[in-house]
Amino acid sequence: MSDRIRMKSLLSKVCSADEAASLIKDGMVVGISGFTKFGDARAVPRALVKRAEAGEKLKITLMTGASIGSNLDEDLGDHGIIARRLPYMGSAKLRNHINSGEVMYLDQNLSHTGEYIRANALRRPDIAILDTTFIDEDGGLVCTTSVGNNALWAVTADKIIVEINETQPMEMLGLHDIYHPEPRPGRGPVPITHPADRVGTPTIKIDPSKIVAIVIHQLGDTPVTLEPADDETNAIAGHLMDFFKSEVKKGHMDNTLRPLQSGVGAVANAVFRGFQDSPFHDLTMYTEVAQDAVFDLIDSGKMTAVSTTSFSVTAPYMKIFNDVKKLHGKIILRPQEISNHPEVVRRLGLISINTALEADIYGNVNSTHVCGTKMMNGIGGSADFARNASYTCFVTKSYAKKGLLSSIVPMVTHVDHSEHSVDVIATELGIADLRGLAPRERSRVVIENCVHPNFKEMMKDYVKEAEALGGHTPHVLSKAFSWHERFLQTGSMLMPAKEMA
Amino acid sequence: MSDRIRMKSLLSKVCSADEAASLIKDGMVVGISGFTKFGDARAVPRALVKRAEAGEKLKITLMTGASIGSNLDEDLGDHGIIARRLPYMGSAKLRNHINSGEVMYLDQNLSHTGEYIRANALRRPDIAILDTTFIDEDGGLVCTTSVGNNALWAVTADKIIVEINETQPMEMLGLHDIYHPEPRPGRGPVPITHPADRVGTPTIKIDPSKIVAIVIHQLGDTPVTLEPADDETNAIAGHLMDFFKSEVKKGHMDNTLRPLQSGVGAVANAVFRGFQDSPFHDLTMYTEVAQDAVFDLIDSGKMTAVSTTSFSVTAPYMKIFNDVKKLHGKIILRPQEISNHPEVVRRLGLISINTALEADIYGNVNSTHVCGTKMMNGIGGSADFARNASYTCFVTKSYAKKGLLSSIVPMVTHVDHSEHSVDVIATELGIADLRGLAPRERSRVVIENCVHPNFKEMMKDYVKEAEALGGHTPHVLSKAFSWHERFLQTGSMLMPAKEMA
Repeated sequence: MSDRIRMKSLLSKVCSADEAASLIKDGMVVGISGFTKFGDARAVPRALVKRAEAGEKLKITLMTGASIGSNLDEDLGDHGIIARRLPYMGSAKLRNHINSGEVMYLDQNLSHTGEYIRANALRRPDIAILDTTFIDEDGGLVCTTSVGNNALWAVTADKIIVEINETQPMEMLGLHDIYHPEPRPGRGPVPITHPADRVGTPTIKIDPSKIVAIVIHQLGDTPVTLEPADDETNAIAGHLMDFFKSEVKKGHMDNTLRPLQSGVGAVANAVFRGFQDSPFHDLTMYTEVAQDAVFDLIDSGKMTAVSTTSFSVTAPYMKIFNDVKKLHGKIILRPQEISNHPEVVRRLGLISINTALEADIYGNVNSTHVCGTKMMNGIGGSADFARNASYTCFVTKSYAKKGLLSSIVPMVTHVDHSEHSVDVIATELGIADLRGLAPRERSRVVIENCVHPNFKEMMKDYVKEAEALGGHTPHVLSKAFSWHERFLQTGSMLMPAKEMA
Repeated sequence: MSDRIRMKSLLSKVCSADEAASLIKDGMVVGISGFTKFGDARAVPRALVKRAEAGEKLKITLMTGASIGSNLDEDLGDHGIIARRLPYMGSAKLRNHINSGEVMYLDQNLSHTGEYIRANALRRPDIAILDTTFIDEDGGLVCTTSVGNNALWAVTADKIIVEINETQPMEMLGLHDIYHPEPRPGRGPVPITHPADRVGTPTIKIDPSKIVAIVIHQLGDTPVTLEPADDETNAIAGHLMDFFKSEVKKGHMDNTLRPLQSGVGAVANAVFRGFQDSPFHDLTMYTEVAQDAVFDLIDSGKMTAVSTTSFSVTAPYMKIFNDVKKLHGKIILRPQEISNHPEVVRRLGLISINTALEADIYGNVNSTHVCGTKMMNGIGGSADFARNASYTCFVTKSYAKKGLLSSIVPMVTHVDHSEHSVDVIATELGIADLRGLAPRERSRVVIENCVHPNFKEMMKDYVKEAEALGGHTPHVLSKAFSWHERFLQTGSMLMPAKEMA
């Protein structure tokens, strides 16, 4: 134990998870670590579930980095412990409590949370619970497999509970780069000009007197599951590769491209697999999450530098943590305030690749709301990147529900990324390069290249009717959501006549 | 003449506007100066109108800073000369050509144009036409009453036509600070940490051999007109003042507030008049436009530093140009790539105040599209500021058309600023502080504080029906635009029964 608590005066703070959890009272704001299900504080939150199971009425505001693993959002949610939740979650169970109105969910741009907290526009955490590899001689905290909002919670919370996670190798020290945005007014630039730049410290520096409890556990991270690649995700990846090649051919960039960013999920992973056999080399990433394919690219030498705020890998890839030393000098984990900072994203000129839930013919993208109402997961970091990247790409299969639902619609039912933030839309059918196009030109390219054949004629009819009514962005307001309404009523966006055909 | 063309080798380039205009051919991309109707190149564009009047078929892509004066968008548009137009216009006449589909309009975030041009994602200008006070000994161009995209066009165009504008005082030299974002990859930070920081040069440095013509004229700027303040704009200003006071009282900032940004128009001007008799002092601005009220605040000493990219004043305020020297050290005009740069906006933590065309109960804002289809003006810089400010405020009267139209609607018909970018909505009735609120909480605050009494019960009924259906952001998809549809059909958003009551 002592090699993980190197500031000896803190040894007296060691206690059980139950004891630590007893510091958390009804109504508190609790900031815990965790991003894309990795590096979440888990022992103490689990003790909260036990309290609820024992009949205690306990409601808290739960703030994280992003989605958390360890079945926490599920169990805390099902036991009614989460009154408010921010800034992102990815739980199908918690989603139900959000959509029913039981849980108040603040779906935030992941770069925004820190600004709101630091400016006191959101309540600061009463207690932070932080997944930690070890505490160094000065009380500095060595993070684990994600940084997320750990540093933010550490400096803004009244009290800190440290979870010493013994499953994490000591060589985690050296992977992280902890930098706090300077206070406003008077803030200076974030001095990052390359994904590999180190600008902070390897540990989270804190006032050790804020540590009120230390809980030691051996609970590992929760590997994620990924849909396997299929012909269609591979086709999307192929279209993007062709697009990047054509940009290189035009002299707009060289074969090292620009620093890459991608969201989580199967399509993103397929795209990154696509880089393996591409002419591109010396690739870099400036992103919020590193998935499986990234580690293969590092292994093969294709990828030379990765800046992220978290890992998020499947079970077979958990082996990377057996030899973390190998990742030193290749991967840096930063606070999400920095990994997603619009200043750095714009400066580096990223290639940004994120998944759309649905997109419309004018290039607006819905990342979050099913039929405009029901939350799927959240906007996450997608908008931090999309607005400021030099190539903003959104990917989606052109259809869902066996072809009854079109992912490209006349008008998206919720806008997370407006036409102004979207350069490229790719489906398995092709790519729509929207840069430099006016809305009436955009709709033609999207329909021609991205819309599923089941819906192509319907969409052309819609556009024809809309353009006859006029307008810069032609719509038939009474029919803009008619596809969604039909889907809600019949389970299909297809017109009855088409279904019969 | 010679004191305005100080590089003597350029004297041979002096010619008439008609001669200069003859360099512009059908199909060319032309980048001209002009922002919020000030500092537009005007002599040569006017000569293009003459060519069209004489029967020539001439179509160009016209790129500017933002809106241009001198009746240019009107005359060029009416003569069919504008095939494509970007990144902003504010002409009621050109709007019609855009909405009919004759003119392809690229409505852009004003900080984005430079990035797209520099990255070759948009065609670079064949010719730039630049409103200029004088040319210095090295061929450097001294701008006039706006900088806008002048420096961008100057360095990216093949050829430059300089318009020497003799109505501008020589003391314009010293007002401007010309800084180019460094090329990507390898770009460094924009080194601005205070609105008063000078980081560039007083002139636009160019290769003088690119100057192909110099046209000397005495055509002045076009003063703008502003709706006078009324009880309602004053009430909106009052609500914002109270909000800022309460933030100061809570210790979130001091009475110097944060650097201010505002869009153009009567409400913004009323807000700035409101600062005159406020407890706030040593105010600064980091904005894209300085309107009338700003100069009174400078005169009274309330405002100590203004960074902008343009002036935009009414006829009575044109007198400020009689003594430009007085503005030195108080106002800096920067390229719009810098005045609107998300990096600087986020760093400075602006208070951003822009006008909404309509807003919805969840905080989404439409700045551009009437009933989701017809372009009003454009998004301008509003999103550059809104996404990154520390206080993002949108203002609108709660109603229009004598109370038949509500500016707060169930769902906006076009989203320029999503819920994620909007902190505060203010109407003459009150203010909705949306920070930290989930959608179901937002709708209550917006309805209570901002919705006109004519529509309050209707809105509550909508929310009730929507929440019964469930969802994180409850909507009745089939009725989300029903208010707009009724307005399009009957000229009123009110339900027939309400109208009779």
